[in-house]
Amino acid sequence: MSVLAVGTLALDYIETPWDKTDEILGGSATYISLAARLLTEPVGMVAVAGRDFPEAHKQLLISKGVDLSGLQVLSDQDTFAWGGRYHDNVNVRDTLFTHLNALAEFDPVVPDAYRNSKVVCLGNLSPDIQATSLNQLNARGFIACDTMNYWIANTPEALRDVLAQIDCLLINDEEAYQMTGEHNLILSARKILTLGPRILIIKKGEHGAMLFIEEQIFTVPGFPLDKVRDPTGAGDSFLGAFAGSLACEPNIGLDALKRAVIYGSSVASFCVEAHGPFQLVNTLPAAVEERTRLFRELTEWPVSHERRGA
Amino acid sequence: MSVLAVGTLALDYIETPWDKTDEILGGSATYISLAARLLTEPVGMVAVAGRDFPEAHKQLLISKGVDLSGLQVLSDQDTFAWGGRYHDNVNVRDTLFTHLNALAEFDPVVPDAYRNSKVVCLGNLSPDIQATSLNQLNARGFIACDTMNYWIANTPEALRDVLAQIDCLLINDEEAYQMTGEHNLILSARKILTLGPRILIIKKGEHGAMLFIEEQIFTVPGFPLDKVRDPTGAGDSFLGAFAGSLACEPNIGLDALKRAVIYGSSVASFCVEAHGPFQLVNTLPAAVEERTRLFRELTEWPVSHERRGA
Repeated sequence: MSVLAVGTLALDYIETPWDKTDEILGGSATYISLAARLLTEPVGMVAVAGRDFPEAHKQLLISKGVDLSGLQVLSDQDTFAWGGRYHDNVNVRDTLFTHLNALAEFDPVVPDAYRNSKVVCLGNLSPDIQATSLNQLNARGFIACDTMNYWIANTPEALRDVLAQIDCLLINDEEAYQMTGEHNLILSARKILTLGPRILIIKKGEHGAMLFIEEQIFTVPGFPLDKVRDPTGAGDSFLGAFAGSLACEPNIGLDALKRAVIYGSSVASFCVEAHGPFQLVNTLPAAVEERTRLFRELTEWPVSHERRGA
Repeated sequence: MSVLAVGTLALDYIETPWDKTDEILGGSATYISLAARLLTEPVGMVAVAGRDFPEAHKQLLISKGVDLSGLQVLSDQDTFAWGGRYHDNVNVRDTLFTHLNALAEFDPVVPDAYRNSKVVCLGNLSPDIQATSLNQLNARGFIACDTMNYWIANTPEALRDVLAQIDCLLINDEEAYQMTGEHNLILSARKILTLGPRILIIKKGEHGAMLFIEEQIFTVPGFPLDKVRDPTGAGDSFLGAFAGSLACEPNIGLDALKRAVIYGSSVASFCVEAHGPFQLVNTLPAAVEERTRLFRELTEWPVSHERRGA
């Protein structure tokens, strides 16, 4: 695979100030793989679903070019289900319910054809499951890993073991603060970079993202949007597009990482424009390129930044 | 004047999680003029102080090249005084006290020598005082204006009259939301640009700033800092440096405005590194240029943003 997404499949129920969904396709593996497919191929997933996972969701993923040979379907379980409600300020949400269901039994098996993937995304899962997946890889590709507050608080040792094996951690600002006890992004980043990953991406939602590698920093603002409908999956979409961009690069140096952060931001900005993964599904690669060109324009400094009369 | 700052002089008392100050020099006119002086000269202020305003504060401003011929000292009043306490998250603060004192009597008089200033900054003051200042200007320079939640809520009509007369409004994101009832920066900006100003800057604190002019947007992240000691005056410093940069430009077009936003961000990043205006006082123009070059590096996209293998 060019990109392998290890993550969750979910049936999501989402309420926003504007509307609410039926049970829709969700989960980190969904967002990561759909986002990666906008930039590269082939893309596969290792994930688990239950007996109630609709065939239509599978067909949708397949139709978008996602390889499902790493998908396990447990016949005696339902699919992981999550419900959330966003506030008027869509940066704030309440979890309405979390039913682990099949996810509680997830014992990932990486198919032979996936074991030499160029970029592996470990979506937000228990560090034990992430480690089990890592152990099945042959040649080491580039390992990008997500996590969340629950694992930082409850399984810190298992998480440390994973951090020691990855190339790049991608988390949000609150998670970086929680992991380090700092309330400053640079100080947090310095601490995290001592824990194993060579590279750290801190995602700041609408405020953009920061890349840290050794002593170097690259910072991008968020792509300005006049319509934000549902932030679900934005971070996973960032991860998937980041991975998809890196998978195209012959060498993963600073410029390649910058490009990956830019594509991550760009693709995540599509994700939030509609409910669930549907804007990712409906976006064409050419639209990603067009938005990324516009993103460049919106952030581009004058040729000389020194004021003229100085 | 190259830049005229109309604003407050204050005696500030500031508590942070780390320490607290004695009564220190503060006020929007202080920060605006010190920041502007890092980029241009001459810079003057129209402001009011009371009988207790220390001679040492006046001498400090004069020593940094700020012209005080527009300063009124009321012999029967004390100086405007403000106290604030910042939380562990320094983006959150409580006001401990506000004593208007001399500010309640402020009837600004713009000296003749100031009436043709190239860039005029209307610092955060009542819209009536801002309007009284505007009415005393001869040739119209570039008018940049700040305001705050209190005036938006309590004197909306007077504020509208001021907005109709200015070139550029600079406010923070919460103020933009409050002014428009929107909770999206682009939608807020579109509404504000119908109210008079041709140009809008939305300041987002550590998250950077956005420039809106007609249909064009320029967005910069915040300059990443590993030490934030006291955010007091950051917005005023942004305004002062923005004005100082513009005052050097032969033409105020998009690139000149971008440069002004960049210098505003850069100088504001110095301000927050120490209590009150002391980091502005201790910063040399060459350090501003150096930080601005570094800021460029931290935000610079690769020559080609398109992923290599695409």
